[in-house]
Amino acid sequence: MTEPRVVRFLFDYISPYAYLAWKRIHALVEGEGYAVEPIPVLFAAFLKAHGHKGPAQIPSKRIYVFKDCLRTATVEGIDLHPPPRHPFNPLLALRVSGLDMPAATRRALIDRLFDEVWGGGRGVEDPAVVAEHCAAVGLVDAVARASASENKQRLRAASEMGIAAGGFGVPTMLVGDELFWGFDSFPHLRRVLAGQDPLPLDRLETWNRQYGT
Amino acid sequence: MTEPRVVRFLFDYISPYAYLAWKRIHALVEGEGYAVEPIPVLFAAFLKAHGHKGPAQIPSKRIYVFKDCLRTATVEGIDLHPPPRHPFNPLLALRVSGLDMPAATRRALIDRLFDEVWGGGRGVEDPAVVAEHCAAVGLVDAVARASASENKQRLRAASEMGIAAGGFGVPTMLVGDELFWGFDSFPHLRRVLAGQDPLPLDRLETWNRQYGT
Repeated sequence: MTEPRVVRFLFDYISPYAYLAWKRIHALVEGEGYAVEPIPVLFAAFLKAHGHKGPAQIPSKRIYVFKDCLRTATVEGIDLHPPPRHPFNPLLALRVSGLDMPAATRRALIDRLFDEVWGGGRGVEDPAVVAEHCAAVGLVDAVARASASENKQRLRAASEMGIAAGGFGVPTMLVGDELFWGFDSFPHLRRVLAGQDPLPLDRLETWNRQYGT
Repeated sequence: MTEPRVVRFLFDYISPYAYLAWKRIHALVEGEGYAVEPIPVLFAAFLKAHGHKGPAQIPSKRIYVFKDCLRTATVEGIDLHPPPRHPFNPLLALRVSGLDMPAATRRALIDRLFDEVWGGGRGVEDPAVVAEHCAAVGLVDAVARASASENKQRLRAASEMGIAAGGFGVPTMLVGDELFWGFDSFPHLRRVLAGQDPLPLDRLETWNRQYGT
């Protein structure tokens, strides 16, 4: 049996679009015969790398983005609530999510932590809350291990990989080298996974010839 | 007969998403019994007001955005080409588009200028090209009039209105005070115009209470 092809899903708990995307990525990707590889990254590192502002730093964009997410959640039937604090420090939640563990455990943990942020929960800044979810999926000493320098470095390396791959936002989906950004990109992502990329290569080549890649 | 309700469509020729949106906004808005009021604005003024970068200033976002637009154009059956130059100076094209003229004339002029940028044309930096389109829709001396200080001020005032309304990108659609951003927002815009806004007001109130509007 060959390994399934993989879609890397780069996410940060800070983003409501990443939450919406997490709720739908598995059905989309697995429906096309691919597997999801979730990779926690620090959105703030993406912004810093590009000298860019996140939506939360522009007041009118901040409220627009939240309203857009609420509308999409209603249409999609996803339960989305304002988190108890936002922005917040996502580092511990990201670091435990990147520890070595079986794929099914990681998916269950990420489910729980995302729901704790955007599903009406308590947020993920309290180490006791994070520890509770780690224990529930069978991870021992996860909060302590997450703070080991090796695991801090793992999150940094993942963020650097995402930036090197061209990432500028979350969620970012990588299909090989091909990057997709945001929940709104799912229709095009689905087409690409189905082998029906609507990209007209001649026009892309014209663009690249004129403007570089 | 009452005046139709209006959706203000704030655009800049610089944006391929604005081009895609222009191709579809009339059917959407008129289909719901509203009229489109096109308002040229300077995207660069929006960015400056927020101290923000546009997609063209982040290399990996620049190419991603163009690919995303090409894919959407294919799916929508819209002819989209790389423009002869990008970024470019859109000021003259924006200023002539904001001169006093009948609504049908303005729509025809904007059609022509957008096609000249994104439909495989010559771009709109050459005043002779802009003048040619103005003449074709019956506007006399438009290029000269566009440079009068009154008409430069009109573009500045429109951009300031857009910023005051919360605009941070183009296209921006305003339904009363309600802002929508981007071609991707069309499904939600349609729902709102149809009186079926999926926004859960209780959760928005929670957000506003916690974080301000």
